[in-house]
Amino acid sequence: MKKRYVLIVAGGKGLRMGNELPKQFMPIRKRPILMFALDCFHEWGGGEIIIVLPKEYVNYWKWLCRRYSCAIPHRVVEGGETRFDSVRNGLTAISKPGAGLQGLVAVHDGVRPFVPKPLIEACFIAAEHYGAVVPVIPMSDSIREAESGGWPENRVDYMYIKSHAVRRHRYVSVQTPQVFKLDLLQEAYGQPYSQDFTDDASVVEAMGFEVRTIAGSRDNIKITDPFDLHVAEAWLTNSWL
Amino acid sequence: MKKRYVLIVAGGKGLRMGNELPKQFMPIRKRPILMFALDCFHEWGGGEIIIVLPKEYVNYWKWLCRRYSCAIPHRVVEGGETRFDSVRNGLTAISKPGAGLQGLVAVHDGVRPFVPKPLIEACFIAAEHYGAVVPVIPMSDSIREAESGGWPENRVDYMYIKSHAVRRHRYVSVQTPQVFKLDLLQEAYGQPYSQDFTDDASVVEAMGFEVRTIAGSRDNIKITDPFDLHVAEAWLTNSWL
Repeated sequence: MKKRYVLIVAGGKGLRMGNELPKQFMPIRKRPILMFALDCFHEWGGGEIIIVLPKEYVNYWKWLCRRYSCAIPHRVVEGGETRFDSVRNGLTAISKPGAGLQGLVAVHDGVRPFVPKPLIEACFIAAEHYGAVVPVIPMSDSIREAESGGWPENRVDYMYIKSHAVRRHRYVSVQTPQVFKLDLLQEAYGQPYSQDFTDDASVVEAMGFEVRTIAGSRDNIKITDPFDLHVAEAWLTNSWL
Repeated sequence: MKKRYVLIVAGGKGLRMGNELPKQFMPIRKRPILMFALDCFHEWGGGEIIIVLPKEYVNYWKWLCRRYSCAIPHRVVEGGETRFDSVRNGLTAISKPGAGLQGLVAVHDGVRPFVPKPLIEACFIAAEHYGAVVPVIPMSDSIREAESGGWPENRVDYMYIKSHAVRRHRYVSVQTPQVFKLDLLQEAYGQPYSQDFTDDASVVEAMGFEVRTIAGSRDNIKITDPFDLHVAEAWLTNSWL
């Protein structure tokens, strides 16, 4: 079995939440979101954990770990300006690209606090075989595609966007952890950045490598806005696993 | 101003939830989901309400209304085999297609219990002007599209579906109420059924009529599975409007 690494990417500086504190540090049940994600991988227990943080928050995170008596072994790596830079920094911290280290690496969003342990293991097992695996879930809403370009930040402008219905069963939502052969992902992150890189799978795919999908989990929510924070609180209260 | 109608579509017989009771009748805070949706349109107060129900559940619904002392005026119409049939039955109950009745009609999912009143009004105002309006919200996850066909029901088979990343900012999730000029929607529902009809907007669009979009609301959740039921409970507890 190849050596397994986990890169928890928490490099965001938090703008979308309308709050100064980046969302990975926001509390649910008085404990930082990122610490829940760290708990999940620690409880799974199958690999070495590296957390990528904004440079400005490294000391804050260390303080949080003391404050919450979190003694889970992990390394901390400084992120970059974009998510792409952050993942690349994390990968370089594992080993020099091209050094030929045989391994598997999971890239996980630091704002997904409830990833089930069986899902982590399933992604690694599949990646051992296929090289690039991402968890996906079906969509429950109808979806529309913009005719050209995309949807504007300013929602008042939605009215003027030409769009059309698309068949929802052709699409799935992508989650993390996304697991890859280490040398494959390092090579992929050697490419110049493109706007089409929306997640790690898309970076690997841009090299022409086929990405496999696996069934994800509804519990594996991503905390994006205040609504999600309330969902997360409810998840903990009901613990409907 | 045109006369306004609201069609709350609750014709589902409930298979996806793994429960005998169709999801529109399931309780959140001990009150049926559908009754919350009815409350929203009653509180908005701008139009005549028609609820489309499975034939087998019409008496059950009447019993629920007595049981929960719900005296909100509304008509009940029997649905059909599919959602398409149900909406068409509801439209026919408003007026005979082709009769030339001038009006606007909102079609709303009976499993969206928290639609904000300002959103209902905004959709009607925009539809008065544009004829066909749907609320949409941005997507927070990356998405992947199947190369051909769609994603199978059996999630074990996900592994064998060829897919590729698509740019998430090109897509939005579609909500309800979807509001249309009555004669336009009646004409659209005169078309033969197609698999591409994923919502009412897609039916209107298939006639070549342009559908406009408006910013929806994160609060306007759709109850699709047990996870959503817990989210709904949490929404009520926190009432984070």
